[in-house]
Amino acid sequence: MRQIAILGIGQTKIDEHWDLSLREIGGNAAFAAMQDAGMDRVDALFVGNMLSPLVSGQNQLGAFFSDWIGLWRQESVKVEAACASGAAALRAGLMAVAAGDIDSALVIGVEKMTDKAGHDVTAALATAADADYEGEQGVSFVGLNALMMRRYMHEYGWKHADFAPFSINAHANAMHNPFARLHQKINVDQFEKSAMVATPINLLDASPTGDGAAAVVLVPAERVASLNGKPRITIAGSASATDSIAIHSRKDPLFLSAGYQSAKRAYEMAKVEPHDIDVFELHDAFSIMSALSLEACGFAERGKGVRLGLDDEISPKGRLPICTRGGLKARGHPVGATGMYQVVEVAQQLRGECNGTQVDGAKIGMAQNIGGSGATILTHILKAE
Amino acid sequence: MRQIAILGIGQTKIDEHWDLSLREIGGNAAFAAMQDAGMDRVDALFVGNMLSPLVSGQNQLGAFFSDWIGLWRQESVKVEAACASGAAALRAGLMAVAAGDIDSALVIGVEKMTDKAGHDVTAALATAADADYEGEQGVSFVGLNALMMRRYMHEYGWKHADFAPFSINAHANAMHNPFARLHQKINVDQFEKSAMVATPINLLDASPTGDGAAAVVLVPAERVASLNGKPRITIAGSASATDSIAIHSRKDPLFLSAGYQSAKRAYEMAKVEPHDIDVFELHDAFSIMSALSLEACGFAERGKGVRLGLDDEISPKGRLPICTRGGLKARGHPVGATGMYQVVEVAQQLRGECNGTQVDGAKIGMAQNIGGSGATILTHILKAE
Repeated sequence: MRQIAILGIGQTKIDEHWDLSLREIGGNAAFAAMQDAGMDRVDALFVGNMLSPLVSGQNQLGAFFSDWIGLWRQESVKVEAACASGAAALRAGLMAVAAGDIDSALVIGVEKMTDKAGHDVTAALATAADADYEGEQGVSFVGLNALMMRRYMHEYGWKHADFAPFSINAHANAMHNPFARLHQKINVDQFEKSAMVATPINLLDASPTGDGAAAVVLVPAERVASLNGKPRITIAGSASATDSIAIHSRKDPLFLSAGYQSAKRAYEMAKVEPHDIDVFELHDAFSIMSALSLEACGFAERGKGVRLGLDDEISPKGRLPICTRGGLKARGHPVGATGMYQVVEVAQQLRGECNGTQVDGAKIGMAQNIGGSGATILTHILKAE
Repeated sequence: MRQIAILGIGQTKIDEHWDLSLREIGGNAAFAAMQDAGMDRVDALFVGNMLSPLVSGQNQLGAFFSDWIGLWRQESVKVEAACASGAAALRAGLMAVAAGDIDSALVIGVEKMTDKAGHDVTAALATAADADYEGEQGVSFVGLNALMMRRYMHEYGWKHADFAPFSINAHANAMHNPFARLHQKINVDQFEKSAMVATPINLLDASPTGDGAAAVVLVPAERVASLNGKPRITIAGSASATDSIAIHSRKDPLFLSAGYQSAKRAYEMAKVEPHDIDVFELHDAFSIMSALSLEACGFAERGKGVRLGLDDEISPKGRLPICTRGGLKARGHPVGATGMYQVVEVAQQLRGECNGTQVDGAKIGMAQNIGGSGATILTHILKAE
C-alpha cells in the first residue's frame, strides 16, 4: 500500500452555530484544509456524517458538499459509522488514494446538531444503538454508557471521583484551543457536584454535542518530500474493527474488543508499540470511555485505566498526554465530525502548533474514534518525519 | 491498482417483506453471496444503504450487519449516496481491496422501505434532493423527474408514448427473473392509460420501491485464476462523479454530466468504448432516466435516447440490451440496494445465468447507478475472462 500524507488541515469552532447551515459549517472546514494544503482542487471528497438525514433532512452529502465547495464533477461520497463516521471517512479516503485510482482526497467530518430540539437529537443519537433490542427499550446513549460505568465501578472498585482527572485534564487543555466548545476550568469538587444525567454519569462526565466540522487533504507521501522545514505527516497506521452492536451481546461489556483489534492492527501497520505513542487523542464521549479506550489500546491493564488520570500521566507533560486539545469532553463532540477533529489535533501536535498544550518532541500520535457503545472503532497512527 | 474479481453474488426477491427485518433481508443476500463464493469469512464489509436511519431508526449498518452475519471483529462501514448508495459501497470495497490493506470484501446493498407509511417514505426519499432549495419547496422525487421529462419532451419533440418501449422491455424481461418485484407484461395501451403520478410521469413510467438486498464478494483477481470452467469476472472499470445537487443549479438539466464523467472514466479504465458494451444495466427509476443515461454514456446523441427503444435495440436480442433482469421499473428499486442489484445482474449475464433474457456471448457489461436527480452517478464495467 503506498504511503499517504496529510498535506492540509482545517477545522471550525464547535458551538451552537445558529447563523451557519450544514453546508457552511462543512464548507468552512474544507476551505481551511484546502488553503492549508495550498490546493484548489482534489480528485475526490469523502464526508463523514451521522445525523444529517435525521436533523437536516439532507442525504447525499458527498454531492451536496462537492457542489458547495466547488469540486464540480469530482467523485464524492458519504461514510457513516455513527460517532466513528469521521475516522471512517478518513479511512475510506485513505484507501482510495492508496489504491492509486485517485491522487488526492479531501476528507470532511461534519455535524449540524442544533437544528432540532434536544429530545429529537437524543432520539437521533440512539440510532447508533441496536434499534430492535436497545432503542426499542428507550435506552439513550448516556444510559448505555451509564450501564458500562456502573459495572466498571462495581467490578473494579473505583468510585466516581476517580474519573475526575479525565474531565479536569480535558477542560484545562481546551482553555488553549480556540476551536473548543467549552473554555472553563473545572476541579474535583465541581466534578462531583455537577448535575446527574444518568447515574453514575453526571454533566461533567459527559461531552457536550455541538455543530462543527474538521477536514484534511490527503496526497501520496512522495509528493510532499519537502515542506520548507515543516514536518511531513504520514498516516502510518489505519485500522477499523467491529463488535456486537448491542452491549448485551458482548462477551465482556467492559472490554472494547473493536478498540483492541483496531489498535493492534494499527500498531502492526505503523510498526510501533504503545510506548512509542507520544500523544493520544481518545474518544472521551463519557469519562468511562477514556478508561476503556486506554485499556483496549494497551496503555493500562484491565480495570486500571483510571489509574493514568490519578497518577497525573495524561496531561501534556505526562507520560501519555490525552485529549490535548480538550477531547470530546471540552473541545466538544459533534458526533460525525469528532473523528476528524481528533486527527486534525494529532496533526497539530506533530506540527508543533499547540501553544499551551504542546507535547514536547511529539513525533508519533494516535487517534481512536468510537462508534456507538463500542461497535465500530477506528484507530489511526500519524508520524512526523 | 491491482485487479479485483467478483467471486460470489447473492440477492433476495424484491417485495414488501412484512415478515423480514432489515437485518434479515441484508443477511440473506450476504449469506447467498458468501455461499456462492465458497467463503465463510471476509476481511471487511461495506454496506450501501440510504434510508435506514429514517425508516428503521437504525444507523451504523456496518457493525449492525457484521454482527448479524457473523463477521465478528471485522472492519465494516456504511456508505451513502442516496439511490447510488449500492454502487458507492461497491466502489469503497473495491478501493479497499485494491489498496492491498485487505484481501477480501463483502459488499451489500440493502433497503427496508415498508416499515413506514408511504408518505413518510416519500419524505425520506426527498432527502436525496437539496433540502434547503428543493425539499423545502415540497418537491418530491417523482416531481423532480417530471420536470425533467416534461422539459425533454418540449425540447426534443417526443410524445409520452415514445417512452413506452423502456417500460415494456423492462416488464418483459422481469418475467424471467424470480427476484423481480413485478411479474406482469405490459403493452403501449396500458402504458398510456396508467394512472398519472406527476404529469407527464404516470405509474408505468415510475419504478416500484420495495424491500431487498443484493451482495457480492470481492477478491484480488489473481486469487481466482481458475474457476472450473466458469468465467472469471473482473471489475475492469469503476468511476464516480457528481453534479450540482439541485437541478436548477445545473447548466443543462437534461444532460447527466456526472453520468457522462463517470462513464468516460470507466471506459478509459476498462479500455473499452461504448460499442464494446454487450449489456447495460441502467438506472430507470423513471423512464426519462433511461433516455438520459443512454445519452450520457454515448449510446445515443443528445435528445435521441428514446430512439433506441423505438428501434427495438434494447431487448436482450437487440444491439444494446438494457434492464435485462427487469431494471428498476420491474425488478424493483429498493433505493440503496439498487446499484448492487445492477452489478449482480451484469455478473449473471457474464456468467450466462439469465435464462430467457440471456444476452448471447456477453463478455463486457456495464452498470450505471444514479443518486438523486443525477447528483451522484457511478459507472462500473465488468469483464468475463
